Amino acid sequence: MGSLDPNSDHSSQFKPLDPEEFRKQGHQMVDFIADYYQKIEKYPVLTQVEPGYLRTRLPESAPYGPEPIETILKDIENDIVPGMTHWLSPNFFAFFPATVSTAAFLGEMLCTCFNSVGFNWLASPAATELEMVVMDWLANLLKLPKTFMFSGSGGGVIQNTTSESLLVTLIAARDHVLDRIGTDNMCKLVVYGSDQTHSTFTKACKIAGICPPNIRSIPATIDTGFSLSPALLRKVVGADVAAGLVPLYLCATVGTTSTTAVDPLTALADVANEYGIWVHVDAAYGGSACICPEFRHYLNGIERVNSLSLSPHKWLLSYLDCSCLWVKNPSRLVKALGTNPEYLRSKLSGSDSVVDYKDWQVGTGRRFKSLRLWLVLRSYGVTNLQSHIRSDVRMAKMFEGLVKSDPRFEIMAPSRFALVCFRLNPYLGSGSCYTETLNRKLLEWINSTGRVYMTHTVVCGVYMLRFAVGATLTEERHVFAAWKLIQAGADALLNDI
Amino acid sequence: MGSLDPNSDHSSQFKPLDPEEFRKQGHQMVDFIADYYQKIEKYPVLTQVEPGYLRTRLPESAPYGPEPIETILKDIENDIVPGMTHWLSPNFFAFFPATVSTAAFLGEMLCTCFNSVGFNWLASPAATELEMVVMDWLANLLKLPKTFMFSGSGGGVIQNTTSESLLVTLIAARDHVLDRIGTDNMCKLVVYGSDQTHSTFTKACKIAGICPPNIRSIPATIDTGFSLSPALLRKVVGADVAAGLVPLYLCATVGTTSTTAVDPLTALADVANEYGIWVHVDAAYGGSACICPEFRHYLNGIERVNSLSLSPHKWLLSYLDCSCLWVKNPSRLVKALGTNPEYLRSKLSGSDSVVDYKDWQVGTGRRFKSLRLWLVLRSYGVTNLQSHIRSDVRMAKMFEGLVKSDPRFEIMAPSRFALVCFRLNPYLGSGSCYTETLNRKLLEWINSTGRVYMTHTVVCGVYMLRFAVGATLTEERHVFAAWKLIQAGADALLNDI
Repeated sequence: MGSLDPNSDHSSQFKPLDPEEFRKQGHQMVDFIADYYQKIEKYPVLTQVEPGYLRTRLPESAPYGPEPIETILKDIENDIVPGMTHWLSPNFFAFFPATVSTAAFLGEMLCTCFNSVGFNWLASPAATELEMVVMDWLANLLKLPKTFMFSGSGGGVIQNTTSESLLVTLIAARDHVLDRIGTDNMCKLVVYGSDQTHSTFTKACKIAGICPPNIRSIPATIDTGFSLSPALLRKVVGADVAAGLVPLYLCATVGTTSTTAVDPLTALADVANEYGIWVHVDAAYGGSACICPEFRHYLNGIERVNSLSLSPHKWLLSYLDCSCLWVKNPSRLVKALGTNPEYLRSKLSGSDSVVDYKDWQVGTGRRFKSLRLWLVLRSYGVTNLQSHIRSDVRMAKMFEGLVKSDPRFEIMAPSRFALVCFRLNPYLGSGSCYTETLNRKLLEWINSTGRVYMTHTVVCGVYMLRFAVGATLTEERHVFAAWKLIQAGADALLNDI
Repeated sequence: MGSLDPNSDHSSQFKPLDPEEFRKQGHQMVDFIADYYQKIEKYPVLTQVEPGYLRTRLPESAPYGPEPIETILKDIENDIVPGMTHWLSPNFFAFFPATVSTAAFLGEMLCTCFNSVGFNWLASPAATELEMVVMDWLANLLKLPKTFMFSGSGGGVIQNTTSESLLVTLIAARDHVLDRIGTDNMCKLVVYGSDQTHSTFTKACKIAGICPPNIRSIPATIDTGFSLSPALLRKVVGADVAAGLVPLYLCATVGTTSTTAVDPLTALADVANEYGIWVHVDAAYGGSACICPEFRHYLNGIERVNSLSLSPHKWLLSYLDCSCLWVKNPSRLVKALGTNPEYLRSKLSGSDSVVDYKDWQVGTGRRFKSLRLWLVLRSYGVTNLQSHIRSDVRMAKMFEGLVKSDPRFEIMAPSRFALVCFRLNPYLGSGSCYTETLNRKLLEWINSTGRVYMTHTVVCGVYMLRFAVGATLTEERHVFAAWKLIQAGADALLNDI
């Protein structure tokens, strides 16, 4: 950048990274963001804008000349903020919250600052090595066996999302089996999950070229608390084998998206191990809770699976994106995803003494991803992270108690973590169609106030509301206020009838 | 977070996102980073640490109690910085530089701040809509036809890396053809690139389940300036069709990684269109230059391809990750990658009035990705971005002139953008093995000084050095100093003999 050029009006002044300008504008932005966090509660949590609202407010093309940061910040306030669904609002109880912290924000600033591209060891030794250390730290915290750790015989890597964690392990499993049976037998490969497994699993399977009819979505029922039945899995796998198909991969879930159901890992591994099926555990949400001894039992049997993923961007205060993936056999990942072009080669590439993370992921380039987690773990320590999980679970229990205390409502699924599934059902015995309509109306009533944002799900044909506690700024008073609002909505709807 | 709980030591104090604490520590971090940028030139650009250096410096597990940010920052200085390869150093001439700017940093801070998860429109209307606007702005700047724009019949999306841009378009192309010929014909699908196409293309093909023997890597030669020959493509495709195979996808490159060769789009499209092959243009590096009228001709023929990707994190000052992908037919992406689980559904999901970006990418969750680009485009304006490109090209031309002025060196490939490929070859006529060894030694000599970082490539069997100008802080004086160092290395090596 920026050589002097007498023929140009601009290049002589244009310094896109002048440290003092950076310092000045960086401080401005810190204040802007701190102010946003301070007043976040005042914004409607769910925006009420209409599709296409923004295009009409912005020019059709990029400006020819530069604009000052003050103008841009004003436009953020006026045009962007009103169109936001405020995920960090303390009144956000939708989906699963995406949790954050000052420490993770600072870690993200550092990651951006270095802008290192750690595709192989030499391109960024510190980035690769810190990721290895942090993945072992987190594995330790979860009491994972040494077979998942670099200090043992496995290892971990930070992916962007669960989808990628699923995809790369699926590819590793697929290629290992195809090596044996030949690539022209791709259409014989079968994969397994329950009908509560996240939709992204089906998507990852399709991307990996698994024939869509071979993606088994085994029904979970209320009898098993919406978890996958090992007996049913055995039946389905047995039938596939009898039909000449090849069982490949099972995705078990610790904390399903709809109801936080937990699949029984040990019993599922019994079946899978017998048939040589790669078992992946998707603990995107529930896994974080397992840093507390009282929740660790949900991972019992983990020593018998092949891989595990967990998203600290959900419940470990880390901002997006951060999906931690551990595998027992990194060499299978590397064999399936490895590349070694001349232009990226260094004297250490491919040597056993270093990890080249590009061979553990879809992309080549990668950021210094571990800084956020490292700062979270160090700034808060294990003790604070555990009480953070416990505080959310306690608030969810409190909300469950409130629901139970109002006879017009009922709890629809066991509450294991910080999600409560419930519905309004004032006239027990009314048709399910009526109840569904009532709850749809109630949800719309609540969300249209802008004071609370909640979402719904349908499990085994039953429509229910989801109240997911855990946004970083949520306190007991927000949970109480949300419940009061839900009750007011019920009052309004029922009086209307 | 943070309800009062008299039974806990910590939860009462633990507020992971206290706005005033955030403000204080945010300011601290801005100063830390501004200081790093100010002194970046003083660090050895390529670290000299040994594999495993970090593990011995860090504890084996995460701390139980919290640690102050001051301690952590000291550890960054002492343990992390010495193990960095400083990608933002003005003396970084390796690979392709990853360029940055204050505006993009601010955009990234905002993106992190909101932490919105824009999988569908309602989950973050502003995030989806700004991305649509910014992708149209950039398309305008590149003079792409309306068929790639939302304001026309196509659209754009920000992926993390080129790998993902390739993967998702490949899946869309694959499923469209499999719909016609049946999924059990997967092994008939053939894909095409040159042997100069980025290695990540082969990887994406393998992930998508393309049978490895069907991944054609057509040799490029020095006669075509290392670009893909349309005549050769026609021959290869013709042979595949005659053998009963089904041509699927061609990846053409504007600015290859080794030498910035440009594949001739119009002539390649002639062949591809005839056979119904999906043409993707990977313009990760070279595409950015096409915002200047004098480089736009490299995209001639773009109206005849199906998709195009370009990475502003390479040459448009945007920090990682940012790969812009435009497609002519978004509905094919959505058909291949769409999901519609109940728990993510809103009244607008799947409606034609909104874009749900989760159906354009591998993952489900996604950040507010367009803010960085929006801030870059507005803060600098078209005029500064153009002069930024021109200034880099000018410095590369200057370096090329220096190389040409020393008869011991020779230029090895046409310099189109800001990369110069050259080698030391003092005794013309010496064996190629000798020359390769000499240049390997020269590169090691240069890089081991820590004063400059360069890399190499091998094209058509010839080893050459790559000097990639364009790190954001690089000025003419750095280019001169690097050249002096290269000459000194040559002197030392040649005197040694």
